Amino acid sequence: MAITVVGSVAFDTIETPAGKRERCLGGAATYFSLSASFFTDVRVIAVVGEDFGRRQEAVFQARNIDTRGIEHTAGKSFFWEGSYLDNLNEAKTHNTELNVFATFNPKIPDAYRDSEFLFLANIDPVLQRRVREQMPDVKLTAGDTMNYWIKDHRPALLEVLKGLDILLINDTEARMLAGNNNLVQAAREVMALGPKTLVVKHGEYGATLFRDSTPKSRGAELRAPAMPLEEVVDPTGAGDSFAGGFFGYLASQPEQSPAAFRRAMFYGSVMGSFACERFGTERMQKLTRPEIDERFNLFRELTHLV
Amino acid sequence: MAITVVGSVAFDTIETPAGKRERCLGGAATYFSLSASFFTDVRVIAVVGEDFGRRQEAVFQARNIDTRGIEHTAGKSFFWEGSYLDNLNEAKTHNTELNVFATFNPKIPDAYRDSEFLFLANIDPVLQRRVREQMPDVKLTAGDTMNYWIKDHRPALLEVLKGLDILLINDTEARMLAGNNNLVQAAREVMALGPKTLVVKHGEYGATLFRDSTPKSRGAELRAPAMPLEEVVDPTGAGDSFAGGFFGYLASQPEQSPAAFRRAMFYGSVMGSFACERFGTERMQKLTRPEIDERFNLFRELTHLV
Repeated sequence: MAITVVGSVAFDTIETPAGKRERCLGGAATYFSLSASFFTDVRVIAVVGEDFGRRQEAVFQARNIDTRGIEHTAGKSFFWEGSYLDNLNEAKTHNTELNVFATFNPKIPDAYRDSEFLFLANIDPVLQRRVREQMPDVKLTAGDTMNYWIKDHRPALLEVLKGLDILLINDTEARMLAGNNNLVQAAREVMALGPKTLVVKHGEYGATLFRDSTPKSRGAELRAPAMPLEEVVDPTGAGDSFAGGFFGYLASQPEQSPAAFRRAMFYGSVMGSFACERFGTERMQKLTRPEIDERFNLFRELTHLV
Repeated sequence: MAITVVGSVAFDTIETPAGKRERCLGGAATYFSLSASFFTDVRVIAVVGEDFGRRQEAVFQARNIDTRGIEHTAGKSFFWEGSYLDNLNEAKTHNTELNVFATFNPKIPDAYRDSEFLFLANIDPVLQRRVREQMPDVKLTAGDTMNYWIKDHRPALLEVLKGLDILLINDTEARMLAGNNNLVQAAREVMALGPKTLVVKHGEYGATLFRDSTPKSRGAELRAPAMPLEEVVDPTGAGDSFAGGFFGYLASQPEQSPAAFRRAMFYGSVMGSFACERFGTERMQKLTRPEIDERFNLFRELTHLV
């Protein structure tokens, strides 16, 4: 079943200990779409400027991603510049230019309206809510956010959370959103704000799935590992790729059963691990489904007793 | 099969967000012994002062731990004072008094000499080596160390590593020991120094098992979770309790097969999680084997796909 995703399609300049790339294709919606496209049909809503041309469009086309919802407008695309020189787990932002994103007003193409799954990537919660309200009949809505919106746009974010089935955030964000340093308590408090499912990503240590149906004695529903990687070339987009694998797999299933949620966590981790292996979307562009399944099996070996 | 452990038996004053305890029984060998005693026979080598009396002795007796190797001498026992007020993952040391430990010269009782398993808890590597050399016929030797020895006593530590089959350390220690920030690369470099098995503990994110027999494509042998705890009362001794569960389980098995190593990781995590639930050794003293097995099963549910 098809996923509609709204979020940024952007250009990134990235520096890591492995090197530097200037203005490569990036943005949360880009990483999410590429990742989810290995599992199901994906439709993107975003805005780009005149610097987004055929070469960028071709990256989406190659994965059969529906780009009719990408609005082309005068000006430059969203631009981000950051580095991970001291710490591969945390980006240092050097520059953010909203450009055409500053006046973005998401429009949903008619062809997208039968999407049963909706992903609200990390953008202004006001825009997230606007999209959510225009698609009242979706079966399952997931979303992401970040420290900036949690800290300075809390009321708008709280409105978005009410409309989410699943929230995917990292450790720091979960603790900040709940104002509680204990992850189990923080998770329960976040779920009380709306989303009945919470995925907390721990970077190189994997991710935890919390569901409000989990017995209290158990603390969490599932702990999924991350791939122990020999080299992390570029962690940009790992979280969005995780979300794409997680939500893409869920959308591909006839039923979103508890077992499907557990496997979705593993697929999320798998896709996040691939994203780190090359700069920008390079690895995602060359990835194949057999490689994904091979790594999924490896994750099983990495975690299961025999 | 019996384990001989050498390490500190001490008094700790601990402050955490959950409260404060003055001079409770502690020390790496204490936590290790209590934890391992649920799986196999344990024999302790340590030194204590006149402040170690019947009440402390009784804690060991209640778990049938052999204390004939605990030397009683004039003076005060090793004392540590620390807090975890800002960060439950990292102790802030306020005071360390070596006391009788300053002149400790480990002596191995004859009754201990048939031990097939040896654990060198975190003490001066010169002492660790001295004990290792006095027990040349053990079947399996494991050990722990810390940042202080890695930084300032490297040559002595490197000698110890040559005699270890298994090293258990945390993330920061592994990266520091190898001088490499990538965990997979650091693990390989540490294993090249002697121990063919390396357990890296990630605190609340679990632990990773590295073995030099693991195929390179896989990065690690196993990732074990930590229990998502509603409340961490006191993390003191969690690492030593992990080691006790891990090594105790291994020693209880007829064969130290790859599958036994994997289950040992889960038992390590299980014991580490219990240690955090009460101050000092309180939880370990009241623990039962059925509780351990119940949590082991819960860890399986927390990690396995269905």
